[in-house]
Amino acid sequence: MTPAMENLLLRFELITLQDRYIAALDSDRLEDWPKLFVEDCFYEIIPKENDDEGFPAPVIYCDNAAMLRDRVISLRNANIYEKPTYRHFVSGLQFEKLDDDNILMTSNYVVINTSQAGETSIYQAGRYIDRVIRTADGWRFKSKRVVYDTSRVQTALAIPI
Amino acid sequence: MTPAMENLLLRFELITLQDRYIAALDSDRLEDWPKLFVEDCFYEIIPKENDDEGFPAPVIYCDNAAMLRDRVISLRNANIYEKPTYRHFVSGLQFEKLDDDNILMTSNYVVINTSQAGETSIYQAGRYIDRVIRTADGWRFKSKRVVYDTSRVQTALAIPI
Amino acid sequence: MTPAMENLLLRFELITLQDRYIAALDSDRLEDWPKLFVEDCFYEIIPKENDDEGFPAPVIYCDNAAMLRDRVISLRNANIYEKPTYRHFVSGLQFEKLDDDNILMTSNYVVINTSQAGETSIYQAGRYIDRVIRTADGWRFKSKRVVYDTSRVQTALAIPI
Repeated sequence: MTPAMENLLLRFELITLQDRYIAALDSDRLEDWPKLFVEDCFYEIIPKENDDEGFPAPVIYCDNAAMLRDRVISLRNANIYEKPTYRHFVSGLQFEKLDDDNILMTSNYVVINTSQAGETSIYQAGRYIDRVIRTADGWRFKSKRVVYDTSRVQTALAIPI
Repeated sequence: MTPAMENLLLRFELITLQDRYIAALDSDRLEDWPKLFVEDCFYEIIPKENDDEGFPAPVIYCDNAAMLRDRVISLRNANIYEKPTYRHFVSGLQFEKLDDDNILMTSNYVVINTSQAGETSIYQAGRYIDRVIRTADGWRFKSKRVVYDTSRVQTALAIPI
Repeated sequence: MTPAMENLLLRFELITLQDRYIAALDSDRLEDWPKLFVEDCFYEIIPKENDDEGFPAPVIYCDNAAMLRDRVISLRNANIYEKPTYRHFVSGLQFEKLDDDNILMTSNYVVINTSQAGETSIYQAGRYIDRVIRTADGWRFKSKRVVYDTSRVQTALAIPI
């Protein structure tokens, strides 16, 4: 296989991971979300302002997959009267091979949500900064940093971004 | 060809179909829209609420390509004073081979429209649920279900989603 | 390589160019933006209305890469108190080989911006009409026409679209 072809195939595999991530969240299959991470993983949601200034103060922080699963259980048990529908969109994917099994991947995201009353608006825009690792089951997230631009972020009962 | 390569090529062909669909609608080439369906096809626009509850009450329903062509003719003849510009965006593509010639494909969509006064806003977000079939001319839609989140949907004179 | 495979690889290379374009602008690496054009290039931002009527009145017009670099320097020197964050999203890519080294490429775009106060909204939607040319360093923009739908366009100190 030529290097261009290998690169193309790698891009395809990364997009497949990203699309599975989006589809799990937006189809309310939250239980599938932690499965896209390795056990020893890291997930945070952090304001761009803090990230720019190297001031780590994430609004959500999980440093292993068990915490991700706990979060899903909390969301399922929470009594959310007004559950909105989310739609994730990504663009501008960039990736870089750190070695054969580790990738650094970034992309823009925007989440559009629709309230139960049927009102659609932009929920949040920002940038994903991902470390992706090769496993026996395919590529998985080693870490995912969700760096958001939008200031209004509902953390307590929000679905993952 | 390896299975990974075949899968990649299939994804490429499906995205090509999806992009042609979007480009036809957003470039006001409505006449090209029915050509992306087989003759014995099915197209509907249905609220997510109804789809979730298994209560079929589509706001638009066509069960063959002739009905799609009729719809285009109606749109062309309609006296629309304020014709907006639409832009479709898709993300989170998932597909599954039902057999060699039949694919189930889903994705998020958002349509952004701009009025003649130049105001841009979100028109509608939702999810495509497509059956895609192999033909002598390439992949075509066997069925396309447009399941929308947004409640405000103008049906009478709206372009296809 | 089969024609389908060649086409797939070409699409991959074009998307890679487009993603680099987006990432440069949205990551505030403006200096990388002119590098994606050939020296003898053309860049304009023009309202859809004018483009539809064949009435060329671009709000921004550069006809070589030096003008693009000058524009970046102006932006860097400008005293912008309220610098927003931009996120570009594209969809509906279409491309056509004019010859082995020249491609016509179009796609939808939407730019979402977030003010320093953290308010996120749609900044501008429209369509890219690109001429892409093969160089020793890979594909580059020979021309890029940004045809926008949205009327509210801030030109003086705006980042490129």
